Amino acid sequence: MKSDIELARETKLKPITEIAKNLQLNPDDLMPYGKFKAKVNYELISEEKMQLSNLILVTAITPTKAGIGKTTTSISLAQGLELLGKKAVLALREPSLGPCFGMKGGATGGGYSQVLPMDEINLHFTGDFHAITSANNMLAALLDNYIYHNRGTDKPQLKQVIWKRVLDVNDRSLRQMVSGLGGSANGIPAETGFDITAASEIMAILCLAKDLEDLENRINNILLGYTVENAPFYVRDLGVGGAITVLLKDALHPNLVQTMEGGAAFVHGGPFANIAHGCNSLMATRMAMSTGDYVITEAGFGADLGAEKFFDIKCRLANLNPKASVLVVTSQALKMHGGVDVADISKPHTEGLENGLLNVGVHLKNLQQFGQSVVVAFNQYHFDTEAEIELVRKWCEGHGAAFALNNGFTQGGKGAIELAETVLKTIEKVPSANVKFAYALEDSIEDKIRKVVVNVYGGKFISFSPKASLMLKRINRLGLNNLPICIAKTQYSFSDNPTHLGVARDFEFKIADLIINSGAGFIVAVAGEMMRMPGLPKSPQAEQIFLQNGEIEGLS
Amino acid sequence: MKSDIELARETKLKPITEIAKNLQLNPDDLMPYGKFKAKVNYELISEEKMQLSNLILVTAITPTKAGIGKTTTSISLAQGLELLGKKAVLALREPSLGPCFGMKGGATGGGYSQVLPMDEINLHFTGDFHAITSANNMLAALLDNYIYHNRGTDKPQLKQVIWKRVLDVNDRSLRQMVSGLGGSANGIPAETGFDITAASEIMAILCLAKDLEDLENRINNILLGYTVENAPFYVRDLGVGGAITVLLKDALHPNLVQTMEGGAAFVHGGPFANIAHGCNSLMATRMAMSTGDYVITEAGFGADLGAEKFFDIKCRLANLNPKASVLVVTSQALKMHGGVDVADISKPHTEGLENGLLNVGVHLKNLQQFGQSVVVAFNQYHFDTEAEIELVRKWCEGHGAAFALNNGFTQGGKGAIELAETVLKTIEKVPSANVKFAYALEDSIEDKIRKVVVNVYGGKFISFSPKASLMLKRINRLGLNNLPICIAKTQYSFSDNPTHLGVARDFEFKIADLIINSGAGFIVAVAGEMMRMPGLPKSPQAEQIFLQNGEIEGLS
Repeated sequence: MKSDIELARETKLKPITEIAKNLQLNPDDLMPYGKFKAKVNYELISEEKMQLSNLILVTAITPTKAGIGKTTTSISLAQGLELLGKKAVLALREPSLGPCFGMKGGATGGGYSQVLPMDEINLHFTGDFHAITSANNMLAALLDNYIYHNRGTDKPQLKQVIWKRVLDVNDRSLRQMVSGLGGSANGIPAETGFDITAASEIMAILCLAKDLEDLENRINNILLGYTVENAPFYVRDLGVGGAITVLLKDALHPNLVQTMEGGAAFVHGGPFANIAHGCNSLMATRMAMSTGDYVITEAGFGADLGAEKFFDIKCRLANLNPKASVLVVTSQALKMHGGVDVADISKPHTEGLENGLLNVGVHLKNLQQFGQSVVVAFNQYHFDTEAEIELVRKWCEGHGAAFALNNGFTQGGKGAIELAETVLKTIEKVPSANVKFAYALEDSIEDKIRKVVVNVYGGKFISFSPKASLMLKRINRLGLNNLPICIAKTQYSFSDNPTHLGVARDFEFKIADLIINSGAGFIVAVAGEMMRMPGLPKSPQAEQIFLQNGEIEGLS
Repeated sequence: MKSDIELARETKLKPITEIAKNLQLNPDDLMPYGKFKAKVNYELISEEKMQLSNLILVTAITPTKAGIGKTTTSISLAQGLELLGKKAVLALREPSLGPCFGMKGGATGGGYSQVLPMDEINLHFTGDFHAITSANNMLAALLDNYIYHNRGTDKPQLKQVIWKRVLDVNDRSLRQMVSGLGGSANGIPAETGFDITAASEIMAILCLAKDLEDLENRINNILLGYTVENAPFYVRDLGVGGAITVLLKDALHPNLVQTMEGGAAFVHGGPFANIAHGCNSLMATRMAMSTGDYVITEAGFGADLGAEKFFDIKCRLANLNPKASVLVVTSQALKMHGGVDVADISKPHTEGLENGLLNVGVHLKNLQQFGQSVVVAFNQYHFDTEAEIELVRKWCEGHGAAFALNNGFTQGGKGAIELAETVLKTIEKVPSANVKFAYALEDSIEDKIRKVVVNVYGGKFISFSPKASLMLKRINRLGLNNLPICIAKTQYSFSDNPTHLGVARDFEFKIADLIINSGAGFIVAVAGEMMRMPGLPKSPQAEQIFLQNGEIEGLS
């Protein structure tokens, strides 16, 4: 089979105005970026139309290191629905340059299920990540400048700065540094560092903002640090919320692109799925629901991390109720969770596969707890046997889930017809209930964490480090205990131990730290070491990326 | 008079397709960015059409701290020419976000002579600065990653890294730092720092590249550091020139916008005018000359810095021959150079004005040495007296220069009719000769510097610091002595002493360092302390920037 970029290149794209026209959007509603990308005026979002739209969440079981194909599955499902004559619109996250030039590759699907133009989406796209980088770092410069010029004045003096800088690159050298060296003309020495742009609180804010006013309010609510009197110091205290919002004004509009088969996709926002909520922007979801009858969206990592945050943070905030959830599985992931050595997961292994279903079982039960009707999408590989597939199909049907094979990667929409039909039938016959949250906002922060750990992850004990306990008090003191929580843990296990595959039960879950994201509007509960700035591998993908006859090679 | 942004807002913009159509460009030649900005396919550049075009350089006498209005004069001249029925096209530099949120403001002209949409041009524009930031920092990450993963292998080991990171923000805290802290998983501790994006060698490269292939060659030629064997280590040794070029592929296309009066302007590239050559991209100049009969471009700072580099670096490289040069003066700058206290330069002072003409005299003689026919543009203020104006007019006419009043700021193109007519007449009657360079490429680096210092600046002695002397040897050893030079000195004096106003004569000129920009293709000769990362003032402009009813306030 050809490479992703070869397949992408062979696809004749439609002008973005034509894609927009299919959504009843006029050229005047678009801010074009070249011929095949456009930002769409978010004032066209219609609550009325949203009510008539069917939202579908695509999530996954606990993934392997290579991922499990959520984005590809999402795109193929949309393409399949379109082949069945339905008006399907995607709402997806935008890729980050860091992993694209590092190891993981882009985030535009694969094979015959991609969003296009994949090279442009994977590179600078419409500049959203750059705008966030700019806004984040302008804020850092303005804060350091405030501290610098106001030393010894009667203005609030800061004793601790928690705001960091960001860049959209994998760069381990920037994780920890001492800045402001070189004498007093060059600032004040400070321990600081850079995160990757997707980890910026501003990214999470952009993805949760309802409109420009809400964006500005959230920016103003960002906690930057603490004064010597131990008072919180917010962006509003710095007085630059307006300027930072100005830098994000265009980025707030969702981006419209197309699938390989000419369907519509809003690709907008890409916050981290551990230290943030990991979903595309609310703008994109709402715009997709205002223009499509079936809206397919995804949430980062497995359902324990991604879907939980999708429901408890995003759906709660915006009153969204998906009609169905698609749980992506692969035989390889099942075998890995079933105890098969990773080197052997592409070979038949019935017992391993069967054992791996325990992992599916927990995710399925969780989704059902959230009120969801679930379709298990089995992404088929050439080495999967009939018997293995039937085993999984039977198991699903016995556990209250529908089952469908998916061959979207190798066949595009055609390969996703079974999945599309199964999803349609589920929505028609047994749609999801309204979302049942894992916790109430009125619960204490401890109770919120406990409810997610016990009822979603399957843990038993929760412990708080001394630092986290101190932060609990601070959060209460600042009156932020009614915020939802965003648990940052490994994506490779239900527990906080990445080597604990399959299902983990009755484990202790250790909260090392609590981070206040008062702009985004959640409290991050950190369990274990969280990487906020990735590094590059020994042979980064960048070495394979180049231009040949004006065409880009090496993107995937 | 209304503020710049108010005037900009009141102007009804034409669709960029219409501006393009006036240049005989089809919609298919454009990559639109919204409705009023577009990148233009540089493959439309035509050497044949360029031969028929009249290039006009706008430069200035030694400026005051507030600048002297080169961009505003350039725009007004273009507008004036259009009113006279000529097809005039601008080629200008793009603004940087740092000064825009700091103190200096944007760079889109002022009053009734602006390029529009000024807010978008001053903010993210078409993402060129962001692409350069990305490319520069991706390169830094890839380099650090190479060093990190190859410690102790038989691959070349670096003892010195000269490549720095950049951000498009004024941030003094980032000037000097120690990165790579936090243990061996987080890189290798290193003394480093950030420059502002406009100071990146990649910015200079983008502005000098003839095509994509040339861009890639220049990227590959960037010197990153030295190995323990004292061998140079270039981007080509790192093997990522292709990937970095991919990040700059779109940025290389020049950006088309419009003047307040609906004329065409290519606004593209913005390298520093001291440590780089300070002109808009060659792409923009060539595209403007392929589409306009009269092309107005500018060079940063006074003619000693900007025009010299424009001629010796850019014109030499691209075989450009301006038909005339416009030397911008104001009565305030004249009086400042004539010894009048800066607090009093807005009051009549004939003697001061007359003394200040000595500064004009040196710039005029320099331009004439380069072969230029010169029009002195006197930017008129309400406090200028008839007598003062006549004095300057007579002086110019006595020194072989034409003279014209300009009221472009207050009146737009109408106010620049005298200037436009004078420029047209000069081009018709006494066009410039072909450019006579200040030095030959075959001269040694010392001789090149000496010729500029003696013949352009008016200095007498040149001294090299021990560091610069060492670099001279290194440059010879690397076979780079045939590159042109780019002298980095203060813009406030002919000498290397910023307090030495008026004319400086017979001074010693001290070269502190020589920097190899083998990608851009010049050697930077540093005289004095060069700021590569500005700081923010106590009350940065950002505090005045905000959104009101969806409109941006506070940009200028």
